[in-house]
This record gives sequence, structure tokens and C-alpha cells, in this order.
Amino acid sequence: MDMRFLFLGDTVGNIGVATVEKYLPLLKHDLKPQVTIVNGENATKVGRGINHELYLKIMNAGADVITLGNHAWNNSEIFDFINQTKNLIRPLNYPGKDVPGHGYIEMNVNGNQVAVINLQGRVFMDEIDDPFENVDNLLTQLHKDNVNIIFVDFHAETTSEKKAMALHLDGRISALVGTHTHVQTSDGQILPHGTAFLTDAGMTGPNDGVIGMKFEPVINKFMTARPNRFEVQETGSAVLSGCYIDVDSKSGKARKIKNILINKDHPYQEF
Amino acid sequence: MDMRFLFLGDTVGNIGVATVEKYLPLLKHDLKPQVTIVNGENATKVGRGINHELYLKIMNAGADVITLGNHAWNNSEIFDFINQTKNLIRPLNYPGKDVPGHGYIEMNVNGNQVAVINLQGRVFMDEIDDPFENVDNLLTQLHKDNVNIIFVDFHAETTSEKKAMALHLDGRISALVGTHTHVQTSDGQILPHGTAFLTDAGMTGPNDGVIGMKFEPVINKFMTARPNRFEVQETGSAVLSGCYIDVDSKSGKARKIKNILINKDHPYQEF
Amino acid sequence: MDMRFLFLGDTVGNIGVATVEKYLPLLKHDLKPQVTIVNGENATKVGRGINHELYLKIMNAGADVITLGNHAWNNSEIFDFINQTKNLIRPLNYPGKDVPGHGYIEMNVNGNQVAVINLQGRVFMDEIDDPFENVDNLLTQLHKDNVNIIFVDFHAETTSEKKAMALHLDGRISALVGTHTHVQTSDGQILPHGTAFLTDAGMTGPNDGVIGMKFEPVINKFMTARPNRFEVQETGSAVLSGCYIDVDSKSGKARKIKNILINKDHPYQEF
Amino acid sequence: MDMRFLFLGDTVGNIGVATVEKYLPLLKHDLKPQVTIVNGENATKVGRGINHELYLKIMNAGADVITLGNHAWNNSEIFDFINQTKNLIRPLNYPGKDVPGHGYIEMNVNGNQVAVINLQGRVFMDEIDDPFENVDNLLTQLHKDNVNIIFVDFHAETTSEKKAMALHLDGRISALVGTHTHVQTSDGQILPHGTAFLTDAGMTGPNDGVIGMKFEPVINKFMTARPNRFEVQETGSAVLSGCYIDVDSKSGKARKIKNILINKDHPYQEF
Ligand SMILES: [Fe+2]
Ligand SMILES: [Fe+2]
Ligand SMILES: [Fe+2]
Ligand SMILES: [Fe+2]
Ligand SMILES: [Fe+2]
Ligand SMILES: [Fe+2]
Ligand SMILES: [Fe+2]
Ligand SMILES: [Fe+2]
Repeated sequence: MDMRFLFLGDTVGNIGVATVEKYLPLLKHDLKPQVTIVNGENATKVGRGINHELYLKIMNAGADVITLGNHAWNNSEIFDFINQTKNLIRPLNYPGKDVPGHGYIEMNVNGNQVAVINLQGRVFMDEIDDPFENVDNLLTQLHKDNVNIIFVDFHAETTSEKKAMALHLDGRISALVGTHTHVQTSDGQILPHGTAFLTDAGMTGPNDGVIGMKFEPVINKFMTARPNRFEVQETGSAVLSGCYIDVDSKSGKARKIKNILINKDHPYQEF
Repeated sequence: MDMRFLFLGDTVGNIGVATVEKYLPLLKHDLKPQVTIVNGENATKVGRGINHELYLKIMNAGADVITLGNHAWNNSEIFDFINQTKNLIRPLNYPGKDVPGHGYIEMNVNGNQVAVINLQGRVFMDEIDDPFENVDNLLTQLHKDNVNIIFVDFHAETTSEKKAMALHLDGRISALVGTHTHVQTSDGQILPHGTAFLTDAGMTGPNDGVIGMKFEPVINKFMTARPNRFEVQETGSAVLSGCYIDVDSKSGKARKIKNILINKDHPYQEF
Repeated sequence: MDMRFLFLGDTVGNIGVATVEKYLPLLKHDLKPQVTIVNGENATKVGRGINHELYLKIMNAGADVITLGNHAWNNSEIFDFINQTKNLIRPLNYPGKDVPGHGYIEMNVNGNQVAVINLQGRVFMDEIDDPFENVDNLLTQLHKDNVNIIFVDFHAETTSEKKAMALHLDGRISALVGTHTHVQTSDGQILPHGTAFLTDAGMTGPNDGVIGMKFEPVINKFMTARPNRFEVQETGSAVLSGCYIDVDSKSGKARKIKNILINKDHPYQEF
Repeated sequence: MDMRFLFLGDTVGNIGVATVEKYLPLLKHDLKPQVTIVNGENATKVGRGINHELYLKIMNAGADVITLGNHAWNNSEIFDFINQTKNLIRPLNYPGKDVPGHGYIEMNVNGNQVAVINLQGRVFMDEIDDPFENVDNLLTQLHKDNVNIIFVDFHAETTSEKKAMALHLDGRISALVGTHTHVQTSDGQILPHGTAFLTDAGMTGPNDGVIGMKFEPVINKFMTARPNRFEVQETGSAVLSGCYIDVDSKSGKARKIKNILINKDHPYQEF
């Protein structure tokens, strides 16, 4: 029997949260996923981090797990609740002793053990622990515990680090979906050993502006190299980006991966 | 009347050139573009640069213009012929006096003046001249010459620099298509003032491996940080990535942009 | 006859400004420089930028010219007065139209035309205009105007960009002194064609902490990769770092360059 | 009783090795160090890595330990002998299973246990394992074994990472000396808890050119952003850079650190 994962990429600002609230129930009704995951690293109104209220909003909209990324810690309210909030996960490979929160979650879904992992890349990003080594160690442990339905949100900048990680994990996880660039790629595929892969799911939030932010400060920064306070784009239309993946619940292998993209050019349609 | 542009992203190695030779004639037969542009910055068998033989192969396959990128200069044979080869263009904003070759080409196509520009970004890339200022200056000159059908291949790493450039040029050019990440994005769109935009066209070449290169050296580099000689993936199936864009030849505004993706999961189909 | 330049590196925070006020009069009394230059890019109490009050303090302490760097624009009060303040210069090669302020100053000193230039590097720094090309153009103009006593504060991160610039300008300027790393180097030298060179003058400010900032937030950032608000070190002893350079006022060639370093291990001594 | 460490920074190319051979015996004769350490990461004639012949030359000149850095692996001959060569150490925090060689050496010197550690930074360098965490773990082990005379060569780019590491280890090691920038700093100091610190020892090799390399290819790269093959500067005068440190052999605390700089402006003098 198949298990379906529904995933939405980086939720950005008020428009992002409202768009999740508007479309996630419809998508769940139509797609009937067993596991729904939403990246929430940009959920606050300033586009950096998440707080408890937004966590609840996204969960109430239908998420089972919320993942994060390099902006995980930008809203300091997260330190108040992440330790007690098992279904809000931050990248596994943050360094240091006693990193707040957890880098993955294990859940029982209809009798199947399922793990969702959040991982972060390093190329052109912060100096954190080795994502390759960290995920290898976790997979050894999960496989020992007979968990073989495993979803990874790999939050990374470059296409090369994402594809290399996907091939590295091919056959050991069910799916790896990238986040962080805020632009959806069209390369959804099943890798040779059964892992579903999409370089980036894209973002959910304001469609205008520059990957979620207002255009003017961004272009001023590019053209003057002087400081410009970036602000979330708060007007205009929205985009919702993500994918769904069907996994054989016995083998943990993926059978199918399909992009989801809703915006003014691609209105919502029943699936 | 409309003018159609056909664009193929970074051609990688022998498989890339063979894939262009195989499919470009079919695509031209079916799509009947007035202008065909192919990015050739990775055309040599080692995936870096281009030489005269490969330039001829891609032109003979049907290209009108070949664009380049950060690998433009990696095969030094280019210095022998780029000055005399107007339809092979390198990024406009390379610095220094007497940069070999040209950063754009102006052509008469069925009575319309058309310009194709190659531009390169700077975020997480080499320190070159300002792409925003350089293209602004060139557009001022082109518009003075009444050229308003303008295609830009913007070779850049980040989604933010690409979208910022697209919005900066919106209404002043017909289309901006990104290259360099080797993975196609699914965000093809017409911006508010009539410029067609796609964050990245993706690559044409080996589908296996890591964005054109063999997996083993890449994963070894990531996992050991020790030197590993990267090599082009020379076996397995191929991918062809690109897009086509319809432009109103009177106003220079784009009417339509559509992705092209051919691989083992998406076989060639008549358009 | 010789002309003497006295230069102090990046002035950091309250301790930095107080240290300039304490020692600069002594240094001027003992060394009798004709031109005194102080880098003030970190002069505010938070270590970022400068304001009018601090500008006046440093000028009143004895500076003839204040130079800046990548933190030039971090305190927005600068926009209120930099255009009218010719002896406060910002890096020449900031991009964009109508950059506030000036990148160099020309002064008449005892009948000699002298220029002081502020320049900024690009390796591991912001994407700004080419410092090599920009300074070449300015030097052409200055030489045409018969200015040959020229001091450059090159604000840059890497030793290679600094040494390359120094050799590039050797014989065309009197002295190039680096800033930005906040640590003084011991390589003061006269280059073959007569330009004095020091890779970095070092900083003037709190001696404890990490290049001017409190240790705890910095080490926490390194060990956790989580956000930590950096703060200027406000206690402990101070360091003053700089150099003086003797230039033949006829030829513009340097005769001598000597480091100045005052801290708890190296108390002030008459020169 | 005191123990003296003599340290020489990055040995670059033929001139570097010859300079070590010329001056190290003199320095040892005059300074009578108990432990002599030479960084050899650029010892080959192309300035990248080391081979067995050069290893022997530097040892025969008087080194007890040779340290490396980011260029450790650039000459692949090292893989043939580093595992059997305990006094040639590479940075401790290279990632992966079974990294060739060792990251530190423990030696008995006149009845005292001494450790020499090679460590590498990450800011603006390769993505390797956390140097802070790695050295903490090693120090816990060394202290358990009652080793308290400990010298660290920290191969890193930025002044901030070096000073942060020094303060982090202050009181737990005898000395931390930086390498990699190839330019000596003048900030030698004893930190509050007894650790000697110098941001960078500087290089030993060709004094002309750009930190060991010929000027022309470097300036061409800066001014054109096109590929230029860097080559070691093979003519002109030499520089030798380093320092010596006196350590109380009972407490492991440093008493004194002093720069050594020999070049055409600073001829060798008896100490
Ligand atoms: Fe994000
Ligand atoms: Fe992110
Ligand atoms: Fe490419
Ligand atoms: Fe490229
Ligand atoms: Fe500074
Ligand atoms: Fe700075
Ligand atoms: Fe080195
Ligand atoms: Fe190095």
C-alpha cells in the first residue's frame, strides 16, 4: 500500500501563512496525504523565523510536521517552545552542545514508522556540522530501528550540494526535497535506487517582489552596496509551491513525485 | 506579428553536444523559432569552455547565437576565434580593457532589429563588473537605436540576483532567462511590464551524475574536503532543457514563455 | 624636503575614539606629521559607522582626513553631512549614481598638492566596483594635475588583494596602507619603485575581545551558528595602531615607513 | 624551567625551503629551542603541498614537527608517506572516515610531555569539521593524560576566527600561532590566562611577488577575472617569518613570545 507525502516549501510572511491556510485544506481534501510537511522558516511577518502563534496556524491548517532552515533562530521566541514541540524540527546538523529542539521526528502513521528529517547544506551558507556525516549516522540508527519510510527536507543553496546529497542517500530514504532558494525546480524524479528527488520545492508566499521580499530595497542593495532593510512583500498575488510523493509503505521506495504550483497563472485545480 | 525565441541552457560535454545535435533540428522543425540561442559554456568534453569545432557543431545543429558564462575562458582555444565570431557571445560585464569577444549581438531578423545579450551575476561568483550598471548602459544605447526586441541570458547563481535583475529590466527587454545552476525552474512567467522570465533554463547533457559531473569525485569532495578531479558524466541518459518565448515584434513585449524539458521521463513530443 | 604622513587604523567604539583623543596629540607633537589620517569606519559606540559628533572629535584630536570602509554607511546619520564634509572620505569604488560623499581629497600642504584616497577591496567583501580600474582612472587624472604625493587607505580583507594592489600602484603613489582586519602586520616596506606599503595598520580601540568586539557573542556564533548580537568591547585596556611614512615631497617617493603600536605591552614612548 | 618553541610560518617553494635550510640552523644555534616547528603546506616548487624529499629537507634543516594547512593534499605524493610519518601533521579537523595522517603529535621532550596540534579554520575556507569542537575534544583527552605543554598552529584566514580561537583556548594551551595569510602580524601577546598568541607568523619564501606567487598572473586575475595560472615567485630576495615562545614547563603557561622576521630590510642578527 502507498503512503502519500504532501510538502510545501518555505512559507514567507503573512501572505505565506494565509496561503497555506487557504489551500492546504483543499490540497489535503483532494490529495489525501498521510503525512503533510510544511517548511516554516520564513513564517513571521518579517520573513525570518517562526513563533508559537504561527506554528499553531500552520499546524491547524493541516501540517503534521513543520521544518525550518537557516532562519530557524531569527525569531528568538522559538527558544521558548521548540524543545517541547516535537513536530517542529530544525536542521539536524546545527553545531554545539544542547542545540534547542530536534533535527528529526519519528511518527507512527497507520502502523508504519515514518521519519521526517530536516537537514541544512553548507555551500555559500553558515558553517555548521557536516550534513552528509550527520544524516549517515541518523540513517544507521533509523534503519536499525526498522524505519525505512524517510522524508528529508534539505535546506541548501546550490544545485550541486542537493543533487550530491540525493544521490548519496538514494535507496536509503524515500524522498529528498530541497528548500531555501524559494524557486521551484522542474526536475522531480525517482532516482535509480528508489528515492524521490526535487532540487527545490519553491516558496509559499508573495508572488511579486524578489523571492518574498520587496523589490526596492533588494535592487538598491545590488546597485549601491549600501545597507538596505529588506522587507517582506505585503501586497499583490500569492504563490504556493510544493510537491507530493507516493511511497511504497513496505519498501520505503518512492513510486511517484509531482510538483504542486498555484499562482495567478496556475489556478488551483482539483487533483 | 510574433517572433519566437528558442533557448537551450548550458550544453555540457559530449552528451550535451550530441543531445543538441539530436533534438535541436526537431525542435526547430516543430517550433519554427525566428531566433535560436544555445548556452555553450560547458561544451568541451571536460565540461569547461568551448572550442571552434564545438562552436561549429552547435551552429550547424541550428543555433543562431551561442552564449557563455563563467566558464567562457576555461578552454584557451576560444581566444583564437572569439573576436571574429560575432554570434558567439561572452558575458558583457567581464572587466578589463580589450576583453576578447563581444557581450551582445545585434541582428536583423525578418526586418526587425533583435539583440541578444549575455550577462553574468556576481553573488557567490567571480568579482566582475556590475551587471546592473552594464546592462543599463547597453539598453540605453540599444533603445536609442530603436532596438526593442531584446533577449538576455543572465548567467548567475542565486535566485535573488536573477529575479532582481528581471524586475529591474522588466519592460525594457523582451525576455530574461537564467543559466548556470544546471537545473530548470518551473517559474516561467510574464512580468508586469511585459518581460518574460525564467530563473533557470537548466542544462543540456548527462542526466545522471551531479549537474553534469560524475558523482564519485563530487561526493568525495563534499565528504573529505580533499582535492578531487571532477569529470563529466559520460554514460547514461541525457536531458535537454530550455524554453521558448513568443514576443510581439512591434512592441518587444513577451506574450508567452514555455519550458522545454526532454529526458527519460519526458520523451520528445511534437509541439 | 620630506613630508610625513601619520596614519591610524580603524577606530573602534568609545575606547577607540578616547584612545585617539589621548595619544594623537602626543604623536603629532613628537612626530610632527604634515598630514594626519585616521580611519573612522567603526567609530560609533556600536562599532559600525560614524556620526557628526565623532567626526568632530577625531578631527579635533588632530586628524586632517578621516577615511572609512565597508561600515561607512552603517550609521545613517552620515548621509546628513558627508556631502559637505570634504575631509571625511569613503571608499572611491562604491557603485551607483550619485554615491554620497567623495572617494578622495586633494589638499595643498605647504605648497605641495597632496591626495588621500580611500579604496575598498572585493575578495570576501561586498560586490562593489573594481578598485584596480577605479584607482587607475583617478591616478591618471591626478598625475595629469601634477599631484604626485598620494596616500591610499586600502580597506580589504585578504593579504593577496592588498599586496597585488600595492605592486600595481608601486611608483605611482607614495604609500598604500591596508585597513579592515584590525590586526597590525609587521611587513612595512618600501616597494621597488618607491611606494611605502603595510598590509594592515591594525585598529585603535579595545585591546581585549575579538578585533574590537566582546568575546562571548563571537565565540557563541562560531560554536552554535545561531544569531548572536555582536557588541563592542567596552572594558579593559586599549590599543592604538598605525604607522608613519616619510615621503620625498619633490618625487612623491617614500623614504621610510614605520609601525606605531601602543598597548599595555608597548607603552607610549617619545619618538 | 622554561621550554622554548621555535616556529616558522608557511614555507613557500624552492626559495622557502632554501631559506629554511639557510637560517634554521643559525636560529637553532642562537635560540636553542627545545621544539622546532615549521609549516610546510606550500613547500613544493609549485607552492602547493609537500613531498617526501621536501619533508626530509625541512627535517634535516632542524624541524622536529612539520605542520600543514588547506594545501596539505595538493601534492598527492603525501598519501604515500603521511601515515607513517608522525612528525608531519595535517589539520586535525579534516572530515571523513580514515583521514590520512594525524592532526597532532605527542612527544617527550626532556621528560616533559608536549603536544603539537595543527588546526584549520572555516571562515572563507573549505567546509571542514568544526575546529572549536575538535580541539576541545582533543584537549580534554590530552589534559586527562597530563599533557599541558601544547602548541597549536591554527591555519585560518580571518583575524576574528584566530583571535576567537585563541581566547577560547586561553589557559588550556601554551601557545596558538596563526598561519595561512603569509603576512606576519605584530600582535604577539600573552593572553590573560597564559596562552601566547600571534595572529599570523607570516611566510618563509620569496619576498617579491604576491604572498609567494608571481605578480603578473595575480594582477591579471584581479583585473580580468579570466583564468591565470599562478606560479611561485622564483627570483629575488627571501623572507623568513616566525616566532619563538618561552613556556614554563611545569605549568604549561607562556612567559614570552617574540616575532622573528628576516629579509633584506631586517638582516639576520644573533639573538
Ligand atoms: Fe527560506
Ligand atoms: Fe533559507
Ligand atoms: Fe554551466
Ligand atoms: Fe556557469
Ligand atoms: Fe574596521
Ligand atoms: Fe572594515
Ligand atoms: Fe600557505
Ligand atoms: Fe593556507
